[in-house]
Amino acid sequence: MRRLRERLAEVYDLRYAAAVLYWDQATYMPPGGAAARGRQLATLRRIAHEKFTDPALGELLEELRPVEEESPYGSDEAALVRVTRREHERAARLPPEFVAELSGHTSASYAAWTRARPADDFEGMRPYLEKTLELSRRYAEFFPGHEHPADPLIEVSDHGMTALSVRAAFSELREALVPLVAEVSGRPLPDDSCLRQPFDEAGQFAFSEEVIRRFGYDFERGRQDLTVHPFATKFSTGDVRITTRSRENDLRSPLFPTLHESGHAMFEQGVSGAYEGTPLSRGTSMGVHESQSRLWENLVGRSRPFWEFFYPRLRDAFPEQLGSVEQEEFYRAINRVERSLVRTDADEVTYNLHVILRFDFELAMLEGNLAVRDLPEAWRERLRKDLGVVPETDRDGVLQDAHWFNGTIGGMFQGYALGNIMSAQFFDAALREHPEIPGEVSSGEFGTLHGWLTENVYRHGK
Amino acid sequence: MRRLRERLAEVYDLRYAAAVLYWDQATYMPPGGAAARGRQLATLRRIAHEKFTDPALGELLEELRPVEEESPYGSDEAALVRVTRREHERAARLPPEFVAELSGHTSASYAAWTRARPADDFEGMRPYLEKTLELSRRYAEFFPGHEHPADPLIEVSDHGMTALSVRAAFSELREALVPLVAEVSGRPLPDDSCLRQPFDEAGQFAFSEEVIRRFGYDFERGRQDLTVHPFATKFSTGDVRITTRSRENDLRSPLFPTLHESGHAMFEQGVSGAYEGTPLSRGTSMGVHESQSRLWENLVGRSRPFWEFFYPRLRDAFPEQLGSVEQEEFYRAINRVERSLVRTDADEVTYNLHVILRFDFELAMLEGNLAVRDLPEAWRERLRKDLGVVPETDRDGVLQDAHWFNGTIGGMFQGYALGNIMSAQFFDAALREHPEIPGEVSSGEFGTLHGWLTENVYRHGK
Repeated sequence: MRRLRERLAEVYDLRYAAAVLYWDQATYMPPGGAAARGRQLATLRRIAHEKFTDPALGELLEELRPVEEESPYGSDEAALVRVTRREHERAARLPPEFVAELSGHTSASYAAWTRARPADDFEGMRPYLEKTLELSRRYAEFFPGHEHPADPLIEVSDHGMTALSVRAAFSELREALVPLVAEVSGRPLPDDSCLRQPFDEAGQFAFSEEVIRRFGYDFERGRQDLTVHPFATKFSTGDVRITTRSRENDLRSPLFPTLHESGHAMFEQGVSGAYEGTPLSRGTSMGVHESQSRLWENLVGRSRPFWEFFYPRLRDAFPEQLGSVEQEEFYRAINRVERSLVRTDADEVTYNLHVILRFDFELAMLEGNLAVRDLPEAWRERLRKDLGVVPETDRDGVLQDAHWFNGTIGGMFQGYALGNIMSAQFFDAALREHPEIPGEVSSGEFGTLHGWLTENVYRHGK
Repeated sequence: MRRLRERLAEVYDLRYAAAVLYWDQATYMPPGGAAARGRQLATLRRIAHEKFTDPALGELLEELRPVEEESPYGSDEAALVRVTRREHERAARLPPEFVAELSGHTSASYAAWTRARPADDFEGMRPYLEKTLELSRRYAEFFPGHEHPADPLIEVSDHGMTALSVRAAFSELREALVPLVAEVSGRPLPDDSCLRQPFDEAGQFAFSEEVIRRFGYDFERGRQDLTVHPFATKFSTGDVRITTRSRENDLRSPLFPTLHESGHAMFEQGVSGAYEGTPLSRGTSMGVHESQSRLWENLVGRSRPFWEFFYPRLRDAFPEQLGSVEQEEFYRAINRVERSLVRTDADEVTYNLHVILRFDFELAMLEGNLAVRDLPEAWRERLRKDLGVVPETDRDGVLQDAHWFNGTIGGMFQGYALGNIMSAQFFDAALREHPEIPGEVSSGEFGTLHGWLTENVYRHGK
C-alpha cells in the first residue's frame, strides 16, 4: 500500500500542479502568457497520464488484489485499490496516440468555437463537430461490451450510470416538467427589476463571502477570485478555491455563482485528509458534485428561511437600491421562472429541460439517429416543444455551450440534471433527520446542515 | 537539434510550472495550502531534475558535438549545445541521494531559521549550519580538480568566476570602500523624514507602476503582486512577473523594490523568443542579472535626471506629504548614506561591504579557517572594522539573511556585489554610446537605454 500511495501521490502532485496553472490562467495570467501556458498544461497532464497508466502501477494493483479481497468492501483499503484499478484500467485502455489525437482536436475545436460562436457560424463548426462525433464513437470502441456507445463516456464522469438508466430518469422528469413549465408560464412574471440596478462590486463581494463563511466555507483553506466562467478547483484538502464573476447591474452575480461554487468547494474541503494524494480525495462524480453546489445555491440560497436572515443584511448593505423593496418581492424576483434560451441563465424549473435536450441529442448522435448537420434545426424544434421558445441564432442555440466543442459528445451533460435530482434527495434526507434545519437557516446558522453533509457525503470523498 | 529542443521544452515546462506554484505560494495561497504545496514543488523539481539528467540527453548531446564544433562559437546552435551540456553534466554529477539529502536538510534548516531568527537563537541554528557546511564541502567534492571548494558553488550562479577572481575584485573594492564610508560617515546625515510619512498604498502602487511602464516593463506580458520578500519570476517570455512589498510610512517601499524587480523582469522579457524552452532563455548569471536590477533601481532610479521628471509627478500624487519638500531635499533623502546593520536596508555605498563580508566568510568556512561557532563574533568584529557598527543581536547579525539557512555555504552572495560593479560598467558603456540618455531620462524617456540594453544584454539570454 505504501508503494501504491507513493505512486499516486506523484500523479496527484502533477494533477494539482496542473490545476494551479489552470487557475492562474483563468484569473491573473497576463495575455502574453497564453501560448506557453497551454504547452505547460499539456506537458503536466501528459506526464501525469504516463505515470498513471504505467504498467508497473497495474502490476502493483494486481499484487494488492488480496488486500482488496480480504478487506471489507467499504473499507478505505479496499476502496483505494478498487477505485485506483478502475481508473487505471480505464486510462490504460486508451492508446497514447488516440489521447493525443483527441486532445489536439479538442484544442483546435475549442479555439475555432471561440471565434465561431460570436460570428454565429455553425457551418464553420460543423466539420469539427463531425470529427468530435467520430472520435467519441472511437472512444467508446476501446471499451467493448457496452450497451450503448455513450456508456463509456458517461462512466468517466458519473460512474455506475448508463445511457439507459439516465434516459429513464430523464424521461420521467421531462414528462413532469413540460406541463409544469407550461402552467407556470401562463402566469404573470414577477417583477425582477430590483435585481437589475447598479450594485457596488466590493459590497457584493463582501456580502456573498459573508454568506459562504457562514455556510462553512473555510477561507483559511481557500480563497475567491474573479474569472469569466466561474469554477471551483482543488490543489489539496488545505487549498480549495472558488472563482466567481461580476456583472454590472445584476445582483445575482457574483452572489449565486459564489454560493454554487462554495458548495463544490465545501465538498472538497470536507474530504478526509487520509485520502490526500489518491483518487479517493476527490468528490464522487459529476452528479454528486453538482448536487452539493445546487443544494447550497438553490435549496438553501433561494429559500425563504435563508432570506429571512440575510435580506435585512443585504438591504443594509444596499439601502439605496433595496430600501423600498419588500422581502417577498425580492424573494419572488430571485425565484422568477421564465422560459429562456440559454441554459446557464435558466431558473430551477426550466434548467433541467435544457440539460435533457443536450443529453438526448448526445445519445441520438452517437446512435447515428441525429446527424450533425441536422442539429440546429433539431435544437429549435425541441426547444419549441419543451419550452415554447425558439432561438433566432445558433449562437443562442446549439453553439451556446463549450462542452461539445471542448470535449467529447456524450458524458458531458447528464451530471447537471442528476445533480439537481440528488440535491433535493440529499436535502430531504437531511431535513428528515434534522427538522430544525430550516429554523437554523433562518437564524443564519448552517452548522447542522454542513455537519450532516460532512458526515454523510463530504468526508467520504470518492 | 529537434529532439534536443523537445527534451528541453519538457524540462522547462516542468521548471516553469514549479515557478508558477512558487509564485502562487508567495502571493495568494491560503495558509492551509502550505504542506501540500511543498510536496508538489518537490515533485515537479525532482521530475525536472530526472529528465534533465537522463543519460539519453547526455547521448544526444554527444551526437550533437559535430554540430557544435562546426558552428561558430557565438552561434545559437553552438551555444545551445554548449550551455546545455555544461548544465547537464553539472546536474548529472550530483547523485540523486545527495540532492535529496541537501534538499531535505535545507528545508529543515529553513523552517528552523524562521523560528530561530525572531528568537535570536544562533546556538539553535549552529548544528544546522555545521551540517550545511559539511554538505557544501561534499558538494564541491563531486567536482574534482577545483582550485577552491567554493568554485563549484560559485559556478552554479556565476559561470566563469572563481573564488580567487572574485576575491581579487572584492579586495580592491573593499580597500576603496572602507575609507570612503568612514569619510562619508563623518559628515552630517541628510534629513530623510520626508520619506517616513504615511503614504496611501494605492497611490504608491500607481506611481511605481507608471515609472516601470515608462522604463519598458510590458504589463501585457507581466504583472505585479504583493509579497513578503520581493522577487521577479518567469513562466515564459510572454509572462514575466514581479512582486513587491508595501511598508507603512516608508515611501521607499514599494517604489525601489518595484524598480529593482522590473530590471530583472525586463531582462527576461527581452530574451529572444527563439530561445524559449531552452537554457538560453534565462538571464546569464546571478551577477549579470543583478546588474540589470541595480542599474534601473540605483543608476537610473536614484539619479537627478530621473527625479527631475518624476519628482513633480510624485509631489502631485502626494501633495500633503511632499508639498513643502524641495526636490534637492528629496534627492538627498533617497541617497542618504548611513552605516547600518542590515544588508537589505543598506545604501549604495555601504551595501557592497555587507556582501564582501559574507563572501569572505563563505570562503573561510569552506577552507576550514572559520568555524561555525566563531561566526557571530567574527561577524561583529568585521562589521566594526569595515563599517564601525556592531549588531547587538545575532538576529541583526549572522542570522539576518536566509541564504545560508536555505541553501549552501558558498556561491550565495558574490552575485550581489558583482552585479553592482557590472551595473556601473553597463551603464557607462550605454552612456558612452548614447550621451543623450541622461537628457532623455530627465524627460521621462527611456527608449534609448532600454533599446541599448535589449540589443547588448537582454536579447542574448544566456
